Amino acid sequence: MTLLVAGWVAIDEIETPFAKVSGELGGSATCAALAAALFTDVRLLAAVGADFPNEHRRKFEGRRIDLAGLTVEPGVTSRWGGRYHFDMNSRDTVYTELGVNAGWSPRLPDGWDDSTSAFLAAGDPVLQRQLINALRAPRATMVDTIKFFIDGARDELDATFRAADFVSLNESEARELARTPSIARAARALLAGGPKGVIVKLGEYGAAFVSDEDYFVAAGYPLEEVVDPTGAGDAFAGGFMGYLDTVAAVTPAAIRQAIIYGSTVASFQVEGLGPSRLLALTRTEVDARYREFRALTHFEVGE
Amino acid sequence: MTLLVAGWVAIDEIETPFAKVSGELGGSATCAALAAALFTDVRLLAAVGADFPNEHRRKFEGRRIDLAGLTVEPGVTSRWGGRYHFDMNSRDTVYTELGVNAGWSPRLPDGWDDSTSAFLAAGDPVLQRQLINALRAPRATMVDTIKFFIDGARDELDATFRAADFVSLNESEARELARTPSIARAARALLAGGPKGVIVKLGEYGAAFVSDEDYFVAAGYPLEEVVDPTGAGDAFAGGFMGYLDTVAAVTPAAIRQAIIYGSTVASFQVEGLGPSRLLALTRTEVDARYREFRALTHFEVGE
Repeated sequence: MTLLVAGWVAIDEIETPFAKVSGELGGSATCAALAAALFTDVRLLAAVGADFPNEHRRKFEGRRIDLAGLTVEPGVTSRWGGRYHFDMNSRDTVYTELGVNAGWSPRLPDGWDDSTSAFLAAGDPVLQRQLINALRAPRATMVDTIKFFIDGARDELDATFRAADFVSLNESEARELARTPSIARAARALLAGGPKGVIVKLGEYGAAFVSDEDYFVAAGYPLEEVVDPTGAGDAFAGGFMGYLDTVAAVTPAAIRQAIIYGSTVASFQVEGLGPSRLLALTRTEVDARYREFRALTHFEVGE
Repeated sequence: MTLLVAGWVAIDEIETPFAKVSGELGGSATCAALAAALFTDVRLLAAVGADFPNEHRRKFEGRRIDLAGLTVEPGVTSRWGGRYHFDMNSRDTVYTELGVNAGWSPRLPDGWDDSTSAFLAAGDPVLQRQLINALRAPRATMVDTIKFFIDGARDELDATFRAADFVSLNESEARELARTPSIARAARALLAGGPKGVIVKLGEYGAAFVSDEDYFVAAGYPLEEVVDPTGAGDAFAGGFMGYLDTVAAVTPAAIRQAIIYGSTVASFQVEGLGPSRLLALTRTEVDARYREFRALTHFEVGE
């Protein structure tokens, strides 16, 4: 089983009320690939410029990540700068430099069309759909998106949602897309648009999942300290799809487990600046926190 | 077993983006008492003015609520006006008229000092502590508070927290009291202040509970529509304390169940304007949604 992860590999500059870092390894595909590689074999499809530091490339090496799709294109690596507010739940994008991603036209390396699943991180919905269609028989595909594409490419986004098995997006984006303050209604409206399942990411409060067969709500893992929320959503997606790629069958019960695995990996991601915590994370630690998650949330039927 | 519920019975004027009501039965003790009476025998301790409508008094009758403590005092009934924003998660207080509660000095009716538990809804922490101390041997007491008393009566509030078994407060109030953006840290800091357990209410996202023995996180019930959030926190407290008053022993498992019962009752409360949904609610409906809550949140240990 192999999971295709396509999206951005970038260089981040991050400022929180308590820390600051620049030149950090970032990008949606980065955290998703690192997270997924804890569970399954990953194929990373992303473009960087000739300026992409070797020390960052080496961070992907020695893991279950095939780097044949991490290509160096003419131009510079994409860069993103963000600044978090005191509560860590909201942030401002200080700048986005598209670099090589401005005109990136991803091509699957030979043989990658047999990937058993795919995560298309936030990006141009036309490219996302092309990649889904380029796979021969994927068992599960997931598309993530952000406000930029909701505002700017709604029709293409709708077509991509119809082509995907799962769609993941933030609470505020779900509300905006469905034009309702109710998360439950927003998720159902998005589901009516075509995907088989919709995941609404609630940040520190967890996640909600809706499909024709199931409705699942997961509480957030109670973190003592959030160092840097950047990449949490992509780590969630990577953990979710990485685990789902390994199950015998994509059942509602397996999807629930995958959501908890995704939440677990995301809870580690935010404990360090950039992907630092993810880079040191082991599957043993993930499994221990998964069990802790269950202990934290379990309750019996009433008397 | 009997639960003392002390606080405000008031008249509310509520405006949401979708509805408006005035002259509505309101007040912290109202929703808590109505919620708790679904589970146990309730003793309501509150003051109203001679202007308090008989139609509102009748809403408490025919239930498991002893009204001997609902006294008519010189002056007018307290009044509150609130207006909700589009997302229903935030609101402005338009006005608060203290009325008879300005100088209320609650006295327990004869024989009420044998109450087995007590919920002291948000109010003057000195009065809350006097009532706790007036009970002979309560098995469980809970204190709720609001920003007004955190800002204005911090020392008295700390003393009251030490006297109570449980403290419940909103996420924003917990963060302010503990001066940290982390809910987990805020809850632990409040716990260090003296109560046996701290409940942080997360609104539509559920609740978190921390004690020396346990940490529990409960997701929010996924509501299709929120009509009026007023009283949700008090309905939660009433459901929590009402159920807890009926259990054989106040164990961590029973506390977890009580939190889910509280969340369940609160999820009904917000489905109607004022306490209208609570007034029509049955224990059978509550038990059905409790089971649904479990089905919505259950997951197995991973493969």
